[in-house]
Amino acid sequence: MNARIAVPLPKAYRLLNHGPTVLVSSAHAGRRNVMAAAWNMALDFDPPKVAVVIDKATLTRELVEASGEFVLNVPSRQQAALTLAVGSESGRECAPAEDKLAKVGAGATAASVVGAPLIDGCLAWLECRVIAEPHIQQTYDLFLAEVVAAWADPAVFSNGRWHFPDQQQRSIHYLSGGTFFATGDAFEVRQP
Amino acid sequence: MNARIAVPLPKAYRLLNHGPTVLVSSAHAGRRNVMAAAWNMALDFDPPKVAVVIDKATLTRELVEASGEFVLNVPSRQQAALTLAVGSESGRECAPAEDKLAKVGAGATAASVVGAPLIDGCLAWLECRVIAEPHIQQTYDLFLAEVVAAWADPAVFSNGRWHFPDQQQRSIHYLSGGTFFATGDAFEVRQP
Repeated sequence: MNARIAVPLPKAYRLLNHGPTVLVSSAHAGRRNVMAAAWNMALDFDPPKVAVVIDKATLTRELVEASGEFVLNVPSRQQAALTLAVGSESGRECAPAEDKLAKVGAGATAASVVGAPLIDGCLAWLECRVIAEPHIQQTYDLFLAEVVAAWADPAVFSNGRWHFPDQQQRSIHYLSGGTFFATGDAFEVRQP
Repeated sequence: MNARIAVPLPKAYRLLNHGPTVLVSSAHAGRRNVMAAAWNMALDFDPPKVAVVIDKATLTRELVEASGEFVLNVPSRQQAALTLAVGSESGRECAPAEDKLAKVGAGATAASVVGAPLIDGCLAWLECRVIAEPHIQQTYDLFLAEVVAAWADPAVFSNGRWHFPDQQQRSIHYLSGGTFFATGDAFEVRQP
């Protein structure tokens, strides 16, 4: 597990505001899983809320519905192959003795509030509790959740700001077919 | 208006998959408006759907609720100042004779299916029809919509792929306080 510092909840939206692809980790009754999700966004500032699409076919869906919890982990460019791998195979196909985290070699650390694990080596983590909205969960595979704790690696995020130190330690944005964009240059525009 | 080509609807999600900040344009009964929205995401592949947060305080909200339509425009880095400007002031404060588009100098072209305009100089455009979900609109300011037509500038997107030619002609990702990230390098990871 890398270093992490608490992110004040009213600043948690900044971990997702630039649209990175995330890993959704989950756990219930002794089982755990992780999948990739490009379709995620912030939904509110304070208390912070998020939205994420979790397909009915996934094991993640089953664990999230059963536990009412998940973690959004923001992976780094160094974890792009891991991100593609956990987005490409289903936790349902893993042997009981070797879950998907073990299969892809993802380390995990206990979260502070929720039962879902924090994936080691990520840049930031948002611990989330599902806001029950059965109609949109069922109709659109869309899950809304409140962020109940947030963390970041201080090497890349502190004082409410991302500051990527190099080309590898930065967030990623999935396109399709194994292609990602890295988060690029930061630049500032003057308020009008 | 720059050149544009139709994007086949099943590929439209790729215009948003990497999490760019968009401009939401709208029109109703002779009024039109545009605002910025970092909180947007794809929601489905085919038919393509999107989700976007539109605050109750905005004129956009009124026009979108009245018309049931909007356009998500993907602005370029060259339009970052415009993006910040339309995200910082409200269309409600504009004089009737000079709407927000005119005030910030944004050109606009008629869309093909919806009444909301396409903002000139953007990289891509998704024409959207709201899927009525009054409960989540009211409770979370969350709008779901079906994409009914999609367009891209062929200089940056063709054959279902983004290919940014330079540092300016690329999408942007808003963080906060006037800071953006440009979309960075594309890189490929092998399927596991």
